[in-house]
Amino acid sequence: MKTYSKVLGVETRSSVDLRNITGHVRQVIDESGIKNGIVTIFVPHTTAGIYVNEDESGLKRDVDHVLSKLIPKGAGYLHDEVDDNAHAHLRSIVISPSITIPIIDGRLATGTWQSIFFAEFDGPRRRRLIVHVMGT
Amino acid sequence: MKTYSKVLGVETRSSVDLRNITGHVRQVIDESGIKNGIVTIFVPHTTAGIYVNEDESGLKRDVDHVLSKLIPKGAGYLHDEVDDNAHAHLRSIVISPSITIPIIDGRLATGTWQSIFFAEFDGPRRRRLIVHVMGT
Amino acid sequence: MKTYSKVLGVETRSSVDLRNITGHVRQVIDESGIKNGIVTIFVPHTTAGIYVNEDESGLKRDVDHVLSKLIPKGAGYLHDEVDDNAHAHLRSIVISPSITIPIIDGRLATGTWQSIFFAEFDGPRRRRLIVHVMGT
Repeated sequence: MKTYSKVLGVETRSSVDLRNITGHVRQVIDESGIKNGIVTIFVPHTTAGIYVNEDESGLKRDVDHVLSKLIPKGAGYLHDEVDDNAHAHLRSIVISPSITIPIIDGRLATGTWQSIFFAEFDGPRRRRLIVHVMGT
Repeated sequence: MKTYSKVLGVETRSSVDLRNITGHVRQVIDESGIKNGIVTIFVPHTTAGIYVNEDESGLKRDVDHVLSKLIPKGAGYLHDEVDDNAHAHLRSIVISPSITIPIIDGRLATGTWQSIFFAEFDGPRRRRLIVHVMGT
Repeated sequence: MKTYSKVLGVETRSSVDLRNITGHVRQVIDESGIKNGIVTIFVPHTTAGIYVNEDESGLKRDVDHVLSKLIPKGAGYLHDEVDDNAHAHLRSIVISPSITIPIIDGRLATGTWQSIFFAEFDGPRRRRLIVHVMGT
């Protein structure tokens, strides 16, 4: 049993930017040589997150729209007195910065329609992403 | 240290169906022979999720009601032009398709009132569920 | 490869109490002697959760305020006929009772601004928290 991890850079391009990183995750799994285990994808930031869902352009705009409706920007947040991005922190808490996915027989166990997304909520920025593989 | 995984079938019965799968998860842990480690429960679908909470019929209807209020069906989503289930994708993103729970001395480390739920948001359907155990 | 886990007690002080537990998690990782692997932080309760974000007093009040707005207390929930805390269960489902974070070269892979929070939604209470480390 072994562990293998890699820190990837992500350059986001707009205030909200939902980036499909599935290919990068698969590449790290391949490099690791690990065939059975888990991969944990972790964002070391407080205004970004990770989620898994379909890569369809309309749905990505729906994700942005629903989060903007539930947690609007500048809605009188106390943290906005410190830094103008409370909405991004709050969305990051709901979405979570971590997801763990099984690896079975060398394959990421995601379904046909599942992609892994890096969700930027306070861009554009240079971000980091940790892909951590553990198994045999 | 070893890994053991099993793909289970879940037959959901209505558009929203919250199914207690704790017994199935415990059975896979027993089969694995793993006494100390973790179990990752992962749904390979984009319109379903996994959550942990109490199995009380009123609360299950509250979960459905709150998610329906926060993310209503058919609220002008762009993805609904492709497929009529944007609300189910969006609820799945908030709930997440993955959870990891410790296994300690052969026991799932859930508390007295915690059950593991498969949350269907676009049923009825035949679904799959991956229970992945890793440890010693 | 080995596993190490510890059950910690948390004494919450108010109905909603967001407690930074990062120091406790780091201490368990140190005790474990594990340098590369993962830590899973798990709450065995149905009215509390775990999240990762910035420890800033205004933001903590924003978290409470946003969750109270999205999932208000006493909003006609069916579970409130059984026990007067449906809102706390529902918030716990959205926040999740589990998070997994990589450990790399003996260091928790959290970013500069990330702290780990125990989120009490139905306090004050005596709570338990499981910190489970796995790796080499």
